[in-house]
Amino acid sequence: MTAPGPSAEAAPLAVVAGGGAFPLRVAEAARRAGRAVFVLALAGEAGPEIECFPHVRIALGEVGRFFAELESRGIRDIVLVGAVTRPEIGRLRFDLGALKSLPEIVRLVRGGDDNLLSGVVRFVEARGYRVLGAHEVAPDLTAPAGPMSRAEPSRAERADIDAGFAALDHLSPLDIGQCLAIADGRILAVEAAEGTDGLLARLAALRASGRLKLPRRAGVLVKAPKRGQDLRVDMPAFGEATVRGAASAGLAGIALEAGRVLVRDEEAVRREADAAGLFVIGVAQ
Amino acid sequence: MTAPGPSAEAAPLAVVAGGGAFPLRVAEAARRAGRAVFVLALAGEAGPEIECFPHVRIALGEVGRFFAELESRGIRDIVLVGAVTRPEIGRLRFDLGALKSLPEIVRLVRGGDDNLLSGVVRFVEARGYRVLGAHEVAPDLTAPAGPMSRAEPSRAERADIDAGFAALDHLSPLDIGQCLAIADGRILAVEAAEGTDGLLARLAALRASGRLKLPRRAGVLVKAPKRGQDLRVDMPAFGEATVRGAASAGLAGIALEAGRVLVRDEEAVRREADAAGLFVIGVAQ
Repeated sequence: MTAPGPSAEAAPLAVVAGGGAFPLRVAEAARRAGRAVFVLALAGEAGPEIECFPHVRIALGEVGRFFAELESRGIRDIVLVGAVTRPEIGRLRFDLGALKSLPEIVRLVRGGDDNLLSGVVRFVEARGYRVLGAHEVAPDLTAPAGPMSRAEPSRAERADIDAGFAALDHLSPLDIGQCLAIADGRILAVEAAEGTDGLLARLAALRASGRLKLPRRAGVLVKAPKRGQDLRVDMPAFGEATVRGAASAGLAGIALEAGRVLVRDEEAVRREADAAGLFVIGVAQ
Repeated sequence: MTAPGPSAEAAPLAVVAGGGAFPLRVAEAARRAGRAVFVLALAGEAGPEIECFPHVRIALGEVGRFFAELESRGIRDIVLVGAVTRPEIGRLRFDLGALKSLPEIVRLVRGGDDNLLSGVVRFVEARGYRVLGAHEVAPDLTAPAGPMSRAEPSRAERADIDAGFAALDHLSPLDIGQCLAIADGRILAVEAAEGTDGLLARLAALRASGRLKLPRRAGVLVKAPKRGQDLRVDMPAFGEATVRGAASAGLAGIALEAGRVLVRDEEAVRREADAAGLFVIGVAQ
């Protein structure tokens, strides 16, 4: 043993909670998975529901206090969840610990085109902490391997799913391609800046106009993270709105990479899919 | 010399003319390039303007006559140009020559998902003829190497153009990717079933909605045939409508693969590009 103090697994997991419903779900899932949880709720971002967990409220400028809270609890593992608005540097109130790293923090917050969270991960890891992804601490929030719907893909649709994942893999070096639609081996649409909902709206319009002729309920939406995508800061997420979009686009179903796409509410996904007669399936890659 | 009769170059080139303005332009360009031209004008498809060339009118079912017309003139080289509607097999009136190859012709016309023209190329080549592409007999109808506009790409835009062609090349095995939009190294949109105009309309909408934030006049549309695409039956074409679309999408310019993309009316392209301040450039690959 070279690590000082308690082992990483015995000490609590720190959930750094931003906005939205997701931090609470990750905290709950981590606890279900047997992990003690301590929440650092970001002031102005995290909702009050997270306060059912042991927690402190902390402002974005309180960098010294952030590390002191972790250290005093022997915490080594951190997960960052929820939405955070990139702050205006002039409105942050820095504590003493922040001032020690101020040039680094200013670079991080200004950050240019870099993902703010990637910078935070580097900053925290440089101080000896381990940053985990939500999929690692709460695997039951990701797509399971197998169907999430009553309907299941046909043999031909399984071939499209395999071809779709292979195509996404091929697209990865181009830094696009988290999502595509494929029917009978033909790629109908590739996602880039428009997002998954934009892609589905386009397919619906192409079919409505008759420019894309396919049998009713044909084609599969295939979604996976990019190869090498850092799931700790940017993980594809999926919910029932996308099931509705796929139904409107006349697709037969949806395939997600199991374990690597967040499913916001599996029960709602199942309900929408079964109502529309679509399949939704997780496939291990 | 193993070829019987006159050499392929001395004998006329047969222009098999379907609908639209393109057959006449190809015939004229081939004549400008020093080639004698004989037109086989498809009944119900080719317009009357093609009749300024030596020609016969021929129906789709007159297969025996088709080859007899070629043979009597010593013709070895054929180019297929213009639109042809896939005929209903029951409405074709076959001549004796057609009847000899009837099973093959029926397969060809029914053709499933295969391109009708690919089948015609195989059918004609199997009988010893050489099928050329419009870009081979009429190179001055394709994008030249160099600017077609007053504006020219900046250094950063040239980097985007290079990255765009490399990305199209990478996309080729997926049988998509004749066209994409890229800005500052980021691929904004990839064409699949929606076509180039659909891609440009999407970009325009993403920018209008603020979902895609870019400086005014940023990004390049890059267009090339797929690697291995048979340009004799399926060649990307480009015209001033696409210049208008690119201007509406706020792009800075357009790059075409020189010699391998047809330009419908270069003068009109230049006019639109200069009016909008866009660059349009052909780039040899």
